[in-house]
Amino acid sequence: MAYEPNTSCSVPTRADIDLAAERIRDHVRVTPVLHPGRHFAGSKANVVLKLECLQHSGSFKPRGAFNRVLSQTQLPVSGLIAASGGNHGAAVAYVARELGLRAEIFVPEIAAPAKIARLRDYGATLRVGGRNYAEAFAASRERQRETGALEIHAYDAPEVIAGQGTLARELEQQAGALDTVLVAVGGGGLMAGIAAWQPAGTRIVAVEPQRSCALHAALQQGKPCDVEVGGIAADSLGAQRIGSLAFTLAQSRQVHSVLVSDDAILRAQRLLWTELRVVAEPGGATALAALLSGAYSPQPDERLGIIVCGANTDPGLVA
Amino acid sequence: MAYEPNTSCSVPTRADIDLAAERIRDHVRVTPVLHPGRHFAGSKANVVLKLECLQHSGSFKPRGAFNRVLSQTQLPVSGLIAASGGNHGAAVAYVARELGLRAEIFVPEIAAPAKIARLRDYGATLRVGGRNYAEAFAASRERQRETGALEIHAYDAPEVIAGQGTLARELEQQAGALDTVLVAVGGGGLMAGIAAWQPAGTRIVAVEPQRSCALHAALQQGKPCDVEVGGIAADSLGAQRIGSLAFTLAQSRQVHSVLVSDDAILRAQRLLWTELRVVAEPGGATALAALLSGAYSPQPDERLGIIVCGANTDPGLVA
Repeated sequence: MAYEPNTSCSVPTRADIDLAAERIRDHVRVTPVLHPGRHFAGSKANVVLKLECLQHSGSFKPRGAFNRVLSQTQLPVSGLIAASGGNHGAAVAYVARELGLRAEIFVPEIAAPAKIARLRDYGATLRVGGRNYAEAFAASRERQRETGALEIHAYDAPEVIAGQGTLARELEQQAGALDTVLVAVGGGGLMAGIAAWQPAGTRIVAVEPQRSCALHAALQQGKPCDVEVGGIAADSLGAQRIGSLAFTLAQSRQVHSVLVSDDAILRAQRLLWTELRVVAEPGGATALAALLSGAYSPQPDERLGIIVCGANTDPGLVA
Repeated sequence: MAYEPNTSCSVPTRADIDLAAERIRDHVRVTPVLHPGRHFAGSKANVVLKLECLQHSGSFKPRGAFNRVLSQTQLPVSGLIAASGGNHGAAVAYVARELGLRAEIFVPEIAAPAKIARLRDYGATLRVGGRNYAEAFAASRERQRETGALEIHAYDAPEVIAGQGTLARELEQQAGALDTVLVAVGGGGLMAGIAAWQPAGTRIVAVEPQRSCALHAALQQGKPCDVEVGGIAADSLGAQRIGSLAFTLAQSRQVHSVLVSDDAILRAQRLLWTELRVVAEPGGATALAALLSGAYSPQPDERLGIIVCGANTDPGLVA
């Protein structure tokens, strides 16, 4: 399949993110930041953690989903439709419940049980099928043509990216200007939102698992391309292809791309629990894994933001 | 044993708490607050949670322990000594490690394995013995007379209470004035610190498990008295007798005393996980249990602070 840039829409601006923040304000939590203290993770950087894992539905995803829905002037009676490895689906189901809409969610077979349970609890209609996100997405697209429901793309839509960008805006209000932000990448929606918000002086480090690295491969090839996905964080970061808007932003913003091993992700997950009593899923601990493994080495006193972006996991697995 | 009021020292003032905050500032975390959103726990109150479970060592206890140690002009070579159901011991061990001191900690047999593991990790000398806190405390007193180490009482010392009071000071800076604060009570150190800080207009609700209710019994009898301790939160809230300073403050401040069942504590612990992705130990979820069970019923829009004060538990138990 040839690279088809998403030319139907452009990347969001800071003004779009300001508007998104206004739109979703009454629906999402201001998630806390935590300064863990000196020498956290063996680093001399001035670390601040953004605990977005405490967001409604257990990940950052409601920011983008609320903004996509609340940007519409009309909504179809058939409600919302989405495909998701789990966190985005849970968020869309949560959004639908909060706004009194119907939701139909397509989930691949690898989705974590904790995420599927969330979807069911929120009252969404659940369709499990396909080996990965791409297959679930194809099924949701087909179904959308039948029902006319509003598609909430998991990452490659401007309103979704603008919504995720509100996290960076909020972090700036809480922690001031940062030298560097570490963010995990799956389809790239959160990274794109952060890149769209952060001023040029802030370094953005996109962290991917070695076994699910769609952005890294795309940056090497000069265009989005399909990759094999696997590993411990695949249920949240296992996108087969980076979003076209995320790719555009990563190139234009000169985002640094680094890779981490599954072992580093597990160590980061354990450190969050033992040092901070924070539970994160593997994808939620992936940004920290870059600091822990040395994939990214900050300077002493560097103001380093690390996004802990999800916690939909069995908490018994983190200790 | 007759009631012997602690006449050797007086209850701390707001000025003492200001001093304590200055002293411990570089050693403790500013723990985050979280506004969980509308209808949290089925309540119409304006709830704010103080996530003190994210403090160093997994509970609020380092605040008081640091203040006690840093208030001294000289420290014995033999270091620190303490008795604790677990959280205080872990905090004293943490404080000793951070300040380069020795620590000897006496722990009763009922202490949770997660807490004993913490103590060991911090490098303290551990003495396990006695069926409950009172027996461990007696053993630590005897040992202290041999070694001359600085005793860090778990709750009945003015510097410890002033240190715990810094939590209320910090919460006020973060969330503004509150109508009501819900706080769990074991020996009463944290409640006493909050009572010493809060202006008279703020209602303080002291929440105890039905099966470990030393404050409730003392308020009924008009003086501290021994109670049987048991139940799910006994490893953190299982004080046989309320601290004398805490009792004095509870009486003079007209603290409201309420009781909650073990079942309500478990439901609060589960709610913190399912709705917020916050892990709390049973004692850490006890304040919230008062809201959930109706033991305390706030007015609509009441500004209600709830302290989540500890997370030293097996996280697999919360789901």
